[in-house]
Amino acid sequence: MTSTPKYGRFIAFEGGEGTGKSTQSRMLADALRKGGKVVKVTREPGGTPGAEAIRELLLHPPGEGWNARAEALLFAASRSDHVGTLIRPALAEGTWVISDRFVDSSRAYQGGAGGLGDEAIQALHQFGSDGMRPDCTILLEVDEARLSERLAERDGDTSDAIGGRSIDYHREVARSFRKLAEADPHGFRIVDGTGTPQEVHARILDELRPLIEGEAA
Amino acid sequence: MTSTPKYGRFIAFEGGEGTGKSTQSRMLADALRKGGKVVKVTREPGGTPGAEAIRELLLHPPGEGWNARAEALLFAASRSDHVGTLIRPALAEGTWVISDRFVDSSRAYQGGAGGLGDEAIQALHQFGSDGMRPDCTILLEVDEARLSERLAERDGDTSDAIGGRSIDYHREVARSFRKLAEADPHGFRIVDGTGTPQEVHARILDELRPLIEGEAA
Repeated sequence: MTSTPKYGRFIAFEGGEGTGKSTQSRMLADALRKGGKVVKVTREPGGTPGAEAIRELLLHPPGEGWNARAEALLFAASRSDHVGTLIRPALAEGTWVISDRFVDSSRAYQGGAGGLGDEAIQALHQFGSDGMRPDCTILLEVDEARLSERLAERDGDTSDAIGGRSIDYHREVARSFRKLAEADPHGFRIVDGTGTPQEVHARILDELRPLIEGEAA
Repeated sequence: MTSTPKYGRFIAFEGGEGTGKSTQSRMLADALRKGGKVVKVTREPGGTPGAEAIRELLLHPPGEGWNARAEALLFAASRSDHVGTLIRPALAEGTWVISDRFVDSSRAYQGGAGGLGDEAIQALHQFGSDGMRPDCTILLEVDEARLSERLAERDGDTSDAIGGRSIDYHREVARSFRKLAEADPHGFRIVDGTGTPQEVHARILDELRPLIEGEAA
């Protein structure tokens, strides 16, 4: 018999548009539930009524579009609500939380590709959410050819205000994610996002085995 | 003949609920227009389509209410949009801008009464709006008995999420405004908000005479 762990674990999926984060979040949740864990899947921006309302403003700005700083402040506000209202209470109850995006998206998009710098984004996160970090961040990477293909597929779609940015912006996002992950090998696992969903899922489980088995021991 | 000034002036009205800021903003605008100036009256939170959408979220939170930090981030985001989209472009065209509330409301409400501290609020304002200050901030004060009366009148009304807070909170807001104004006698003018609107308006014009005549000279 294993005793109920006091705190859940927090796993975030990161990566550019169309790298499979949502699919892999669900597959990981299913696998963890089969192992007896209580799991909550959430996403950013969003996850709570307040943060989902901010998400709507971010993806469909009511005016002429947010400037980069207003956008970063809105992300930090939505994250503060998400962390305080959902993530921390769930972890405190022993629930595992899987989030489709977290603060490293703000670091890669607004900080890196958007040019605001990592220090500014981290300062906002420190203020809004006490700098909370996931126990593990899975960075899903696809190669650049596949990224271009996926972005081209969206062309003509009603793209949102962030997903709809230029291919150069999205390339810079991918480079920024890679830099963040390389600078923190303890906090990140870089996972190859190419292949079938099952293949990617198996790679993710491999990377998370120490975290999952550490809990069961 | 006076030459067109290159930049407009920026005047903010501050003070607690029901101190007459909106009325006095309009009366001042009328007086300045009679003097030949082009004037834009605006308000915070709000003033632009984006910032008005954030205002709605602040005053009527979709969830269980914002935590203090999320609230401060939302105010900073709305202000960043307001400054970048409306205030700076208007001033650059030579328009005078009068705003019903600006950053000192965030300093008094979230920083002072809300306990986040002035440094944190100023850091968010620095990030979002390059720390922009009005040319003059008019603090309208009413005495405490009148404040209690006005707040009591609202009782039973569908108060918004900020105006509807306790009388202790609003007393602390008033004290915080006073402290900010006393610490910056160059930037603030403290004006007695009691009496008829015309009486208060006359006091405001007296205080602003150097700014207004400086421009006309």
